[in-house]
Amino acid sequence: MNYQLAIVGGGPAGYTAAEAAGKAGWSVVLFEKNSLGGVCLNEGCIPTKTLLYSAKVYDYTRHASKYAVNVPESSFDLGKIIARKSKVVRKLVLGIKAKLAAQKVTVVQGEALIGDAHTIVCNGETYTCDHLLLCTGSQTFVPPIPGLEQVSYWTHRDALDNKTVPQSLVIVGGGVIGMEFASFFNSLGVSVTVIEMLDEILGGIDHEIAALLRADYAKRGVKFLLKTKVTRFEQEEAGTRVCYENADGAGCVVGEKVLMSVGRRPVTQGFGLENLQLERTERGQVKVDAHMQTSVPGVYACGDLNGVSLLAHTAVREAEVAVRHMLGIPDEMSYRAIPGVVYTNPEVALVGQTEEQLQAAGTAYRVLKLPMAFSGRFVAENEGVNGVCKVLVDEDDTLLGVHLYGNPASELVVLAGMMIEDRRKWTEWKRYVFPHPTVGEIFREL
Amino acid sequence: MNYQLAIVGGGPAGYTAAEAAGKAGWSVVLFEKNSLGGVCLNEGCIPTKTLLYSAKVYDYTRHASKYAVNVPESSFDLGKIIARKSKVVRKLVLGIKAKLAAQKVTVVQGEALIGDAHTIVCNGETYTCDHLLLCTGSQTFVPPIPGLEQVSYWTHRDALDNKTVPQSLVIVGGGVIGMEFASFFNSLGVSVTVIEMLDEILGGIDHEIAALLRADYAKRGVKFLLKTKVTRFEQEEAGTRVCYENADGAGCVVGEKVLMSVGRRPVTQGFGLENLQLERTERGQVKVDAHMQTSVPGVYACGDLNGVSLLAHTAVREAEVAVRHMLGIPDEMSYRAIPGVVYTNPEVALVGQTEEQLQAAGTAYRVLKLPMAFSGRFVAENEGVNGVCKVLVDEDDTLLGVHLYGNPASELVVLAGMMIEDRRKWTEWKRYVFPHPTVGEIFREL
Repeated sequence: MNYQLAIVGGGPAGYTAAEAAGKAGWSVVLFEKNSLGGVCLNEGCIPTKTLLYSAKVYDYTRHASKYAVNVPESSFDLGKIIARKSKVVRKLVLGIKAKLAAQKVTVVQGEALIGDAHTIVCNGETYTCDHLLLCTGSQTFVPPIPGLEQVSYWTHRDALDNKTVPQSLVIVGGGVIGMEFASFFNSLGVSVTVIEMLDEILGGIDHEIAALLRADYAKRGVKFLLKTKVTRFEQEEAGTRVCYENADGAGCVVGEKVLMSVGRRPVTQGFGLENLQLERTERGQVKVDAHMQTSVPGVYACGDLNGVSLLAHTAVREAEVAVRHMLGIPDEMSYRAIPGVVYTNPEVALVGQTEEQLQAAGTAYRVLKLPMAFSGRFVAENEGVNGVCKVLVDEDDTLLGVHLYGNPASELVVLAGMMIEDRRKWTEWKRYVFPHPTVGEIFREL
Repeated sequence: MNYQLAIVGGGPAGYTAAEAAGKAGWSVVLFEKNSLGGVCLNEGCIPTKTLLYSAKVYDYTRHASKYAVNVPESSFDLGKIIARKSKVVRKLVLGIKAKLAAQKVTVVQGEALIGDAHTIVCNGETYTCDHLLLCTGSQTFVPPIPGLEQVSYWTHRDALDNKTVPQSLVIVGGGVIGMEFASFFNSLGVSVTVIEMLDEILGGIDHEIAALLRADYAKRGVKFLLKTKVTRFEQEEAGTRVCYENADGAGCVVGEKVLMSVGRRPVTQGFGLENLQLERTERGQVKVDAHMQTSVPGVYACGDLNGVSLLAHTAVREAEVAVRHMLGIPDEMSYRAIPGVVYTNPEVALVGQTEEQLQAAGTAYRVLKLPMAFSGRFVAENEGVNGVCKVLVDEDDTLLGVHLYGNPASELVVLAGMMIEDRRKWTEWKRYVFPHPTVGEIFREL
């Protein structure tokens, strides 16, 4: 059967595009080899946030006395935390299924193989299409470090389904995924060591805020090894010996478990991508234009596959832009205001450019910075917790970047994102009435 | 001594104006008879939110098992909760003092008496000024109900400093203040009855959401008497007997304590307002124009005193507008997007018009409504909790009103306020990338 749109991959880009095209009355087929929702819903954003919320509740119970609430003892049940996570994921997967069913999208469970821009084979059936959207996502990159394949290690996927609390955990890679798991296991009382090759955790995030987060977690007992390269793994009875080198020389740390979180790479193999002969970027990624179209007319690539941003919310917007282009509705993708969040406790959130990026580009900028304690609500709800709101503006006050540390940064950052996307000045926040007391008022206080 | 600006009242309007004018290099004197920060900081927004946060933490400990955290027992210490509240208030009052000192504002502690538009007497000294800003705020309105003066009752002020947990509490008036205290004392295990004269609690707020909140609190044990008029109070040994009438006839309820929260009225007496002969509105309020100027040139009235909105954040914006007018900077006050929040758990937040208002005005509108469970983060963090996002738009999709039920509504509503203020369409939310997963994404899901 011929479809107006065929989609390979049922993650955020895939299901968003399927629903949007279906709503427009198009016939749509979507191929997914695992579970609808992709990495984000099944083993990424949602499960991690569910686990982190249980950890947050556990943190509340342990620090309740700060707010004059007495909790003589509290404990957690990791098995139940994992079970609840699975329940939340199931509920949301069902939600996506229902949305796609409502738009009469044909969902095919299986591995798709692309023959050409209009032909896909799956489970022995051949499907033809007018438009083809590729959104196969990304997978964990596991570096070829000596000994790694001989030891038993976790990726994020194993960590999400593990039901017994290890004594100690070594996390290789202090990026967003690494730090979210460091936060989770630190809350659960696990002795955590984070090994990061760069000179600061959370590469790409404002250095000052990354350092604040690191200092807060160091106070809670997380050990950090920066500018440190892992050289070798060895299995021992007590766990895995992780050997490393840094400016101080060579060393080792033994973890009952090891989590590998050095990064993710687009999935470009195993589904016939090579048959399309798509143009690639210098970095080898599938090249797309502002409408998410590849070099082959009618073939689009969204989400992690194109390697631009590797964030679920980017994928969603890209998918909307792609479908609108197919439908002939003017729109184009902008990467000017893609927010990023680290769901530690406190959260980090950012949008726009960092000081490091502005300096590298030679852009003149000014820093406006306030402690979060300038918000009365923050003071009321964050006893003994610091936070910062750091805003970068250019010479005529246009917002360039916003970097937040403090809850609920994740929910506030889009207030800045909307302004940055529209190239507005920070002074315009003052035109609006923010409810009092809220943490968001910090933007008006600058 | 002569000042360029004299301000009567040190609440949000007063301290905002003082800081802004001081920043512009003006000489400013501010008169405050009680404590800087006004009702909002000393006995309103901030102290209630501090108490409510302790209650929320206590709620977390009691419902932690929903998130697989075990808390065999938890308790609270109301004395310590109140002490923490006082500490938070002191810290924020000091913050305001520091800000005013930094701008060289002269703060005079005492009761000001206005002689004319350019003369104020305080503590026996005479001060002259070029401009005069009046922001004396509001006070609790206690209705003349038979027996009330013979019984001992609380206003919000007493409730904020009370250190012993009553068995039962009758709240007269189910508005925002009444419901926030109902929430607080219900969390502490007090048997709470709310008596409201209108047919729904939270008058002025979307009826559907008010009813949802009421149903949730009813489930938790709060008793509601709607369309009920209190007719008489009698002191008894066990507490206060509150007699009422409604469609079912006459009845009584006895509360160990009674909280009167039927409303607030502008403070217009005791500071020589009558000497200014200001023009009044039909409702008797001080009349102001879009620059917050009264009928007497150079005399401005901001905040609760002018009776327009009685919200701290309105006062802040009004004060900014007033000072900008004094300084000759173009600006004007807009009431189109003043948000409102009820800090219950879950929170209610709203901005723009309600269905009831649109219907009364004969405006055509459309309702877009989603359960909050369309947000994955909401599902992850709100086990067994419902929420709703209700958006009212006109025929060409312009946003008219947004009504939210679910945490963190207070922090999200300004995302809608910015759009409503600028008369934008709801479809524009889709142009922006919201971080995933956040509750705020609900606006993109509509």
